[in-house]
Amino acid sequence: MSPQGTLVLAIDAGGSNTRAVVVDADARCLGYGASSSGNPTAIGPVAALRAIGAAGRAALEEAGAAPEQISRTVLAAAGATDQMPDPARELGLHPGAIQHVGDVLGMYHSAAVEPAGIAIVSGTGAVAGRISTLVVERVHDGLGWLLGDAGSGFSIGRDVVRAVAADLDGTGPTTALTPLVLGHYGLANGGTSRNGRPEVLLALLRAVYDDAPVRLARLAPLAFQADDDAVASRIVDEADAALASLVRRVRDGHGELPVVVGGSVLTEGMLARGDLGALGDALAGADVRRARDGVAGAAVVGLLALGVQLDADRLRRLAADIAGRQGPPPASLPHGSS
Amino acid sequence: MSPQGTLVLAIDAGGSNTRAVVVDADARCLGYGASSSGNPTAIGPVAALRAIGAAGRAALEEAGAAPEQISRTVLAAAGATDQMPDPARELGLHPGAIQHVGDVLGMYHSAAVEPAGIAIVSGTGAVAGRISTLVVERVHDGLGWLLGDAGSGFSIGRDVVRAVAADLDGTGPTTALTPLVLGHYGLANGGTSRNGRPEVLLALLRAVYDDAPVRLARLAPLAFQADDDAVASRIVDEADAALASLVRRVRDGHGELPVVVGGSVLTEGMLARGDLGALGDALAGADVRRARDGVAGAAVVGLLALGVQLDADRLRRLAADIAGRQGPPPASLPHGSS
Repeated sequence: MSPQGTLVLAIDAGGSNTRAVVVDADARCLGYGASSSGNPTAIGPVAALRAIGAAGRAALEEAGAAPEQISRTVLAAAGATDQMPDPARELGLHPGAIQHVGDVLGMYHSAAVEPAGIAIVSGTGAVAGRISTLVVERVHDGLGWLLGDAGSGFSIGRDVVRAVAADLDGTGPTTALTPLVLGHYGLANGGTSRNGRPEVLLALLRAVYDDAPVRLARLAPLAFQADDDAVASRIVDEADAALASLVRRVRDGHGELPVVVGGSVLTEGMLARGDLGALGDALAGADVRRARDGVAGAAVVGLLALGVQLDADRLRRLAADIAGRQGPPPASLPHGSS
Repeated sequence: MSPQGTLVLAIDAGGSNTRAVVVDADARCLGYGASSSGNPTAIGPVAALRAIGAAGRAALEEAGAAPEQISRTVLAAAGATDQMPDPARELGLHPGAIQHVGDVLGMYHSAAVEPAGIAIVSGTGAVAGRISTLVVERVHDGLGWLLGDAGSGFSIGRDVVRAVAADLDGTGPTTALTPLVLGHYGLANGGTSRNGRPEVLLALLRAVYDDAPVRLARLAPLAFQADDDAVASRIVDEADAALASLVRRVRDGHGELPVVVGGSVLTEGMLARGDLGALGDALAGADVRRARDGVAGAAVVGLLALGVQLDADRLRRLAADIAGRQGPPPASLPHGSS
């Protein structure tokens, strides 16, 4: 246990994965846990609560800490966080014991200790916000897969599967994405038709509609993988333009603030390309830092609320410590954030 | 009852509504029934079966016919119709007694008796097909709200609500669609903010995510209503271009065939405008006929299968008879088809 007896449980509930840590007052990670999506908009409140509970309990177990030893619990999540059900019961905590914060704040403090700055996230969803002393003063997008999230893993994955469906349907151009997507779903194109349609297209329809729409975010890496393909390039370029527009919107008049970029679409997709495109232009002159997800930042928010002072070195050590427990990013992005 | 004792029960299960008729061998409508969406992809199999059962039983009741008096039952529905659950039980019929046909075939024979022709439908979904002697030889799109249906009521409605969300979020242009959509959901813009966001945007998010995505098709009429607005015009123009491309794809090499256009987006939206746009060009030179929905055509398919000969006059009388029972189209399109 922490020498001062101060423990923070921090949870970052993303669209594809949920991560939790227990940290002490020295910002050392004592326990880590992970589970699937904890975003109620993406997968429904019941499954989200279950995921949050599983990740949090795993972190507590690894830390050897009982719920009653936790001084503060912070949950970072996308969307209107005060609308989401209270997962206190799943974690063995008293109702109302959890501090809900936006995913933007969690992501920001995963890579910055300065009180004022900007965070841009594109993982399963896409959101940008400006932070001032633990308050998200402005937030743009993060409106979910149906109403917003332009440039997100979902939007790229949906464009990918629509392009493949149009290719198979004969209404769109041939694309190198088609064999990649069919491979992803374990489908083979036998060339046979039924009711005037290719059978493989009917099989693809079933595979996609049988799953939650937001899971299409798992197809996003294929767009980056097939970037020599004209259709894939257009999809990535459109996402790049959308994210650049979001960055400009939130940096407008605040070009001096540090910018934390997070989420796998940004860190492993867009910003891993040779040519940074429109996003590179929109980030020009910024002090840019990368965050893998928002769990370290959620812990920082908890520590700050308890009056613990943090410097950049301690935050870097915490982030590295968490990254060491997480292991390398999974092959298929998006794994992190929003 | 029909003098020959031949009765056909015909059902057209659309994305927003389901319609059913009982007709005799003289193609006279003896009973009519309607209910909500009967499309399993749109609203799930349980609700779809319930809607199909309700519409069919209402038609049987109005006709004073028992299920065992029905000579043939035809169900026209979007998508892979052989994948949908058998609603025989809901209708008091023997399992397997129902002939499943595509919505394209139902729509086509609602306005054409010729064995070969083309049907283009845009209601909740969008699909086009070429028919030859009761077989749909080719079909394009109709891939559902997530994978296809460009130019459909859903796609227009989704673009409308996304434009409104971007307007309220400050990431998109101001649009006249915003007050129309807020009015649709009974929301008022009080100008207050919470967590860095306008409260009315949070309320809109809840209203949209609490409903099935396909219900966004109900917002499509607002795009036509606000057609002086630049954002609304762009949405309608994009849908027009998508439908024109679909029409060209299916008419290619078959310019001599009659073309039946159906679904409220086409009949009450696109083709009710002063300037017919790209769609007008794509339909140039065609013998174009309009169908309100596919229920008359489903009845025609049943009668043809029983060896009943039909001419254009009888079909017109049947369609007018059904239209008389349906009353005027509801104010909010899309009410019919696909």
